Amino acid sequence: MALHPDRLLPIEPDARTIARRLYGQVAGLPILSPHGHTDPRWYAEDAPFPDPATLFVKPDHYITRMLYSQGVRLEALGISSRDGTAVETDGRKIWRLFAQHWYLFRGTPSRLWFEHSLESGFGITERLAPDNADRLYDEIAAALERPEFRPRALYDRFNIEAISTTDSATDALDAHQAIRASGWKGRVLPAYRPDAVVDADRADFRTEVRRLLDLTGQPATWDGYLTAHRERRAFFKSLGATSTDHGHPTARTADLDRAEAQALFTRLLAGPAAPEDAELFRAQMLTEMARMSLEDGLTMQIHPGSYRNHNPALFTRFGPDVGADIPRQTSYVEALKPLLDAVGNEPDLTIVLFTLDETAFSRELAPLAGHYPVLRLGPPWWFLDSPEGMRRFRELATETAGFYNTVGFNDDTRAYLSIPARHDMARRVDCACLARLVADHRLDEEEAAETAVDLAYNLAKRAYKL
Amino acid sequence: MALHPDRLLPIEPDARTIARRLYGQVAGLPILSPHGHTDPRWYAEDAPFPDPATLFVKPDHYITRMLYSQGVRLEALGISSRDGTAVETDGRKIWRLFAQHWYLFRGTPSRLWFEHSLESGFGITERLAPDNADRLYDEIAAALERPEFRPRALYDRFNIEAISTTDSATDALDAHQAIRASGWKGRVLPAYRPDAVVDADRADFRTEVRRLLDLTGQPATWDGYLTAHRERRAFFKSLGATSTDHGHPTARTADLDRAEAQALFTRLLAGPAAPEDAELFRAQMLTEMARMSLEDGLTMQIHPGSYRNHNPALFTRFGPDVGADIPRQTSYVEALKPLLDAVGNEPDLTIVLFTLDETAFSRELAPLAGHYPVLRLGPPWWFLDSPEGMRRFRELATETAGFYNTVGFNDDTRAYLSIPARHDMARRVDCACLARLVADHRLDEEEAAETAVDLAYNLAKRAYKL
Amino acid sequence: MALHPDRLLPIEPDARTIARRLYGQVAGLPILSPHGHTDPRWYAEDAPFPDPATLFVKPDHYITRMLYSQGVRLEALGISSRDGTAVETDGRKIWRLFAQHWYLFRGTPSRLWFEHSLESGFGITERLAPDNADRLYDEIAAALERPEFRPRALYDRFNIEAISTTDSATDALDAHQAIRASGWKGRVLPAYRPDAVVDADRADFRTEVRRLLDLTGQPATWDGYLTAHRERRAFFKSLGATSTDHGHPTARTADLDRAEAQALFTRLLAGPAAPEDAELFRAQMLTEMARMSLEDGLTMQIHPGSYRNHNPALFTRFGPDVGADIPRQTSYVEALKPLLDAVGNEPDLTIVLFTLDETAFSRELAPLAGHYPVLRLGPPWWFLDSPEGMRRFRELATETAGFYNTVGFNDDTRAYLSIPARHDMARRVDCACLARLVADHRLDEEEAAETAVDLAYNLAKRAYKL
Repeated sequence: MALHPDRLLPIEPDARTIARRLYGQVAGLPILSPHGHTDPRWYAEDAPFPDPATLFVKPDHYITRMLYSQGVRLEALGISSRDGTAVETDGRKIWRLFAQHWYLFRGTPSRLWFEHSLESGFGITERLAPDNADRLYDEIAAALERPEFRPRALYDRFNIEAISTTDSATDALDAHQAIRASGWKGRVLPAYRPDAVVDADRADFRTEVRRLLDLTGQPATWDGYLTAHRERRAFFKSLGATSTDHGHPTARTADLDRAEAQALFTRLLAGPAAPEDAELFRAQMLTEMARMSLEDGLTMQIHPGSYRNHNPALFTRFGPDVGADIPRQTSYVEALKPLLDAVGNEPDLTIVLFTLDETAFSRELAPLAGHYPVLRLGPPWWFLDSPEGMRRFRELATETAGFYNTVGFNDDTRAYLSIPARHDMARRVDCACLARLVADHRLDEEEAAETAVDLAYNLAKRAYKL
Repeated sequence: MALHPDRLLPIEPDARTIARRLYGQVAGLPILSPHGHTDPRWYAEDAPFPDPATLFVKPDHYITRMLYSQGVRLEALGISSRDGTAVETDGRKIWRLFAQHWYLFRGTPSRLWFEHSLESGFGITERLAPDNADRLYDEIAAALERPEFRPRALYDRFNIEAISTTDSATDALDAHQAIRASGWKGRVLPAYRPDAVVDADRADFRTEVRRLLDLTGQPATWDGYLTAHRERRAFFKSLGATSTDHGHPTARTADLDRAEAQALFTRLLAGPAAPEDAELFRAQMLTEMARMSLEDGLTMQIHPGSYRNHNPALFTRFGPDVGADIPRQTSYVEALKPLLDAVGNEPDLTIVLFTLDETAFSRELAPLAGHYPVLRLGPPWWFLDSPEGMRRFRELATETAGFYNTVGFNDDTRAYLSIPARHDMARRVDCACLARLVADHRLDEEEAAETAVDLAYNLAKRAYKL
Repeated sequence: MALHPDRLLPIEPDARTIARRLYGQVAGLPILSPHGHTDPRWYAEDAPFPDPATLFVKPDHYITRMLYSQGVRLEALGISSRDGTAVETDGRKIWRLFAQHWYLFRGTPSRLWFEHSLESGFGITERLAPDNADRLYDEIAAALERPEFRPRALYDRFNIEAISTTDSATDALDAHQAIRASGWKGRVLPAYRPDAVVDADRADFRTEVRRLLDLTGQPATWDGYLTAHRERRAFFKSLGATSTDHGHPTARTADLDRAEAQALFTRLLAGPAAPEDAELFRAQMLTEMARMSLEDGLTMQIHPGSYRNHNPALFTRFGPDVGADIPRQTSYVEALKPLLDAVGNEPDLTIVLFTLDETAFSRELAPLAGHYPVLRLGPPWWFLDSPEGMRRFRELATETAGFYNTVGFNDDTRAYLSIPARHDMARRVDCACLARLVADHRLDEEEAAETAVDLAYNLAKRAYKL
């Protein structure tokens, strides 16, 4: 089952030949990973990764959700429960369970990422199955002990040029400071993700706001709160941050006057948030964050549309991020208007929009990004970061927004080993799309080649100021 | 116009060759038809089918709606009017009218099903047209008089292994009892469809509930009503039922406490239902039915999203099911939450979700089915049970839910002759999809072959416990 | 970069060969343009077009929006500001700016239309670029001075058989009268577009209604207002109109009784409209217009779903139609019901529905058009009048509505030079779709050929009574 050199390229021979040439120009480009969730301590400490199950199975919600959907209990996968109930701790047993269910991933991107990781990372070209599970486990476990599988060595092997992590507003960024202090030449950048101090629906909102204010010595006023954000952003920027990230349930924005905003903030600090107040505050904060981006130049990312922790039984038992976040319908046209009315025409601001609702690509997002100077379209995200999802994105968005209102690829992952696989997939799918345009004579190959390089490298560099 | 052996397979030669091999492995598998609308009396009585127009034109709302949309009056198609106005009774005249408009079906699945039925059923390989209409009518009419065209003979010829009908909660299931008593070995199973006693928006709701309570000797209380359902489900199960079916306007569910539910039930029995009460009662009953499925093991099917009888003039004149049911936007994420909160994590319950709104496949349904153990995705249904609809379903759902959170094909038809054609279409389209994954190296052919058999046979067998 | 004869045809050789044959049958058919925005004065006055920038850049909102989205100021493109601020007046400078950003249009239909126009209109087969911008400007500018580039000569060269303009209800249609008086044989028809006297959200609504009433000598009553519409429609019809056109924010319709309608009309004339009143009045007027179409035979077009002038800063400075109209979610099933209840089953009325929300094609529009005799589907419109948009339209709509509930192509443009390019694109994409159906044996080639001619010519002729 060795990886085929033409995987994901067009089936039709003429288009495949063109796609091969295009892919040849981008396959070796450095990786820019401006949005993701790797742990900065990995790079700071450069410690070996633990066993194969902890590396590949437990932290990957694409993997755990699929297994759970087919009756595998999360305890059996070693996911820690909050109540301290015993969970499986034997990585080998978890790995066997994974191998036994590996057929479930046929037709999914997880399948492709995993096999790419096994082959390019460990030289394994067998398909995982119950009868080779133990042997592969041993091979991977042995490799992980070798120096070339430490995080920094992998950074070099993966040809990463820059990678962003995602960090809470109140994070001290110790790991980032340690990386800088170490003298290592890898470029690991924080990104400012203030959701915990912006989303009043969270149980810990008031605690987190208090922590933010304490950290910056600001009073519990609207102005103090905004100043605290400004200071934290400056601190993030001093450690290399070039972007902020905002994960909201909806794309709603608002532009309240100062008195209204102060009153709203006061209500939220006083006690449990009314749902409409929480939504309005998130909405207002998107506009405030956009204004601050105008000041400090951080590229702003908006990720709306996920219904977080949809399964309360699992949330109670295992906490967030175990596969129960479900997309929902998301609309942008009226939701973004207050923000766009305020800053939509600014030439020096970049706001990257993401969606979990594909219907918005041709109907709303491409027309918006194809008009407003501040808007760019993020790549297909979460559930859509797949060959068909990426293909549909290009087909739905390009005719209205073009290629140049998009920002290249984000791997958006905490699965470090899969990063080269994910970027490779995106490059292949984009080259396949471009090759089809060349093959039916909508684009000349020399233009396609230039565009392929832009999609794989230049657009991310420009949008995220890397 | 003989059927081409490669119809619906990929155009590209390499993929077509792979698809042919995959299709070769599933073409001859028995048919499992776990959801449909054939009349159980056909199998009980085994009487000849009447004339060609009554067989092919009058009962097929795909046919009558298209003809009506182009100005053909339903009277001229022999659709009985409620007011007793004269309608065409000459099957030959209806057939001629159909032949004259046959070109309207270019590009539609009806075209493919009909021609498959003509060729495989009657050996007819000419395209229907005004100038051969009479001759084809005579050929079919003559064939229908022969024993091999009786329902039971066709059951064998079609290689059906099991077929479900859809039956009202208060149905005595006489035909099903007669089939069992006859000693015939065909497996015709009832399915419990309680809409008439659940949907308080229907004019006959109170009459139907009364009938249900009388039939089971239960009092007109919420508890009595639930017990009545339990008894009828047990009765259906005793005659082979393995599933229930619920056709609701929306996917809304609720989980009221007992007192609220009793009060709601009392209000509904007292008089005309307020729209919100009717919606809430349907919502509550989905959760109750799910709980009963947990007890009795019947697989539960939810079919939301049809605006029934959208055309009041036609409804008044001809009643339901004449082609004026129109899909509408359907959302699942919040709608299903009360039901999922109650039973979503049960390992032994299967709930099959259908949609008429394709946008839900990648955004809501695949993420839900790719997480909750109880959920499976039904095949593309009504309006979407077509080559492009099926292809889009696989492209939109597989990357997130995989193949194994789906349940194979449902023909969902009352057009008995078209059943083999419909299953053949689904098998071809699925093999085409799998072949494309093999051709661009996302899947190995041996896995694709195993999956093809699962999609054509095993998944339905498992999900519907056949 | 000469246009390739196979552009937009299928990549796969067998399908391409079929598509070539189909295209060969329609490539030379006359153009019917039943919906568009060319200026009738062009045909009346037959004056030369001005410079290349005024012809290709300034009036094309597809061009200006894309340039604006990438930071080009509208002033620099010569778009007149309302406040009289200086804008660029040198066509050559605008053209250079356009050339410099031409790469932005890769993968967009604008690219294909422009290059088709350059090659077929001016014999230019070079790609526009900064280094040939001046030379191409000169070539085009020189050509525009020649008689064969005058509007009437182009009408003949483009092989136009009939073309509709779009005209306000109160327009005197001077240009149309002049065309008729001139004895020129070109067929330029007005279309009745009463939005300005129907949409009470517009600042000039009351002025426009007053003008309509004055023009027809009608009193300011509901009946007087309806009579005024009838008279204007008759006037338009006397000058060749065969259709009306209605651009509304939503597809909502209503069917108020006369007293309610009179009261609503009175409220709207009395002062600023409440948003709900304005929406209800637009809704009511769609039903009234449908009733009038039943009387006078004008084909009715409904174009819902655009959020007009989304960018207030640009609107204030440059007015409408500069690229800030954004589509939004549009639903039809409940919205159209009042109108359909009133006239949906009429055999002699044709209502053409358009959408900016593709999700409605398979879910709502194809089922509606595949049932109601009055409904037909308009071609993919605005943002969707592109190769992928057209392909998706056929894939999403045909299986339910067939080909014969659609109405052929509308170019919908004010860019006269692009009309042949747009029709050619539609013909190619439709032939590609048909060829794929032939290649995978869903349709015979002789039927596909007949259908291709219907899509390119006959369906528009019939639906618009040309």
